[in-house]
Amino acid sequence: MAEKKYPRISFREKIKDIKNNVEKASQKTLDIYRNAIKVLQGKNEKTAEKIIESSERMDDILYGVEKACINLIATEQPLASDLRFIESCIKIGTHLKRVGYLSADIAEAVAEMKGKEKKIPKKIREDILHMADYTEMMLSKAIYSFLDQNSEMAEELDKDDDKVDDLFDKSLEHIAESISKVKNKESIYCLLRLILIARYLERIADQAVSIGHRTVFMVRGKRAEREESA
Amino acid sequence: MAEKKYPRISFREKIKDIKNNVEKASQKTLDIYRNAIKVLQGKNEKTAEKIIESSERMDDILYGVEKACINLIATEQPLASDLRFIESCIKIGTHLKRVGYLSADIAEAVAEMKGKEKKIPKKIREDILHMADYTEMMLSKAIYSFLDQNSEMAEELDKDDDKVDDLFDKSLEHIAESISKVKNKESIYCLLRLILIARYLERIADQAVSIGHRTVFMVRGKRAEREESA
Repeated sequence: MAEKKYPRISFREKIKDIKNNVEKASQKTLDIYRNAIKVLQGKNEKTAEKIIESSERMDDILYGVEKACINLIATEQPLASDLRFIESCIKIGTHLKRVGYLSADIAEAVAEMKGKEKKIPKKIREDILHMADYTEMMLSKAIYSFLDQNSEMAEELDKDDDKVDDLFDKSLEHIAESISKVKNKESIYCLLRLILIARYLERIADQAVSIGHRTVFMVRGKRAEREESA
Repeated sequence: MAEKKYPRISFREKIKDIKNNVEKASQKTLDIYRNAIKVLQGKNEKTAEKIIESSERMDDILYGVEKACINLIATEQPLASDLRFIESCIKIGTHLKRVGYLSADIAEAVAEMKGKEKKIPKKIREDILHMADYTEMMLSKAIYSFLDQNSEMAEELDKDDDKVDDLFDKSLEHIAESISKVKNKESIYCLLRLILIARYLERIADQAVSIGHRTVFMVRGKRAEREESA
């Protein structure tokens, strides 16, 4: 069998396979996130349940990636940079999964507003959608830099995250202001849900940062300052 | 060298080492959580920064565990149940880390209330501390069942989590009620922080559930229904 004669070729094929599956899972994660944001914008009929279903389906792909990585480590004892890549693929699955579930949380929180989300003050709506855009950019950047092994790009994510933190603080302030003027209990409930949504977005940005730190570690072989913040 | 003559003995030693370190990290995680709750109760002088520092120190232990696990897989090709245990030790680190950082988030949110937390309505205070107790019980149960490979106990965590979800919904309702009566902007700000704290507690409970699912998988060799929900 060719596999026995040329073990390194088979090894490369297996690594390529893993990379393809991580790419597939990353793309699906981005889709899930974008669908959740469409729900938030009121542009999408996809219910929270459908989004939860897609993130659960993604679990299977990621579980397969994890098994393939462990098997490859056990059977081929890869060294140095290959090993770091394979380890990172195990870890990145956890981050992608969390982005999926946090996206489902966003869609669920919108569903719990029961149509009242249209009454959200314009300023707050803009804050949140601005955060969502910024977070999407970070997520794309994180995934791209991981797949492309681009540690410079990955490093930008720490600064990007400061911006999302600022946006979070700003929306919290605006929501607090708005709540103090509102009498109606339902509107208050809606605004409280919005705080949670802002937090989910911030957590998704945190996942992007963690993917960035993993990328730096994978490329340079040493850990980033604070590897995981979420 | 004894290590070459009796490789399986050395293998058992290494597995024991990993287990000890996971136990140490678990204990530290529980301590960090309990310190954060003391901050919340106003009983502890430990600042959020100290809690963040301890969770960062824990990163080093967990990073060591991860490396030891990967090395063991690469050099000894463990099979079946050993492999599942080692894989699970890689994964459990992620959950412990998140519990540490979420605990730091709790302490930070309390700090942001700047002493105003004493003015929180009694009912809401009780809700949150009840959630905190319940979450601590879940965390202990998750860690104990993992270390003791007790899948029956691990399975109870799904039901426990429903209870925490109910407590979360209840506190959200009480906070919304309370906010509608409050005029002062600072008190509103405090109550908003409390919502975030309730969410952090719920997320810590989610981590306990994930550890439970990992435990079931480790013991029985098949995945739990929904492996990771946080």
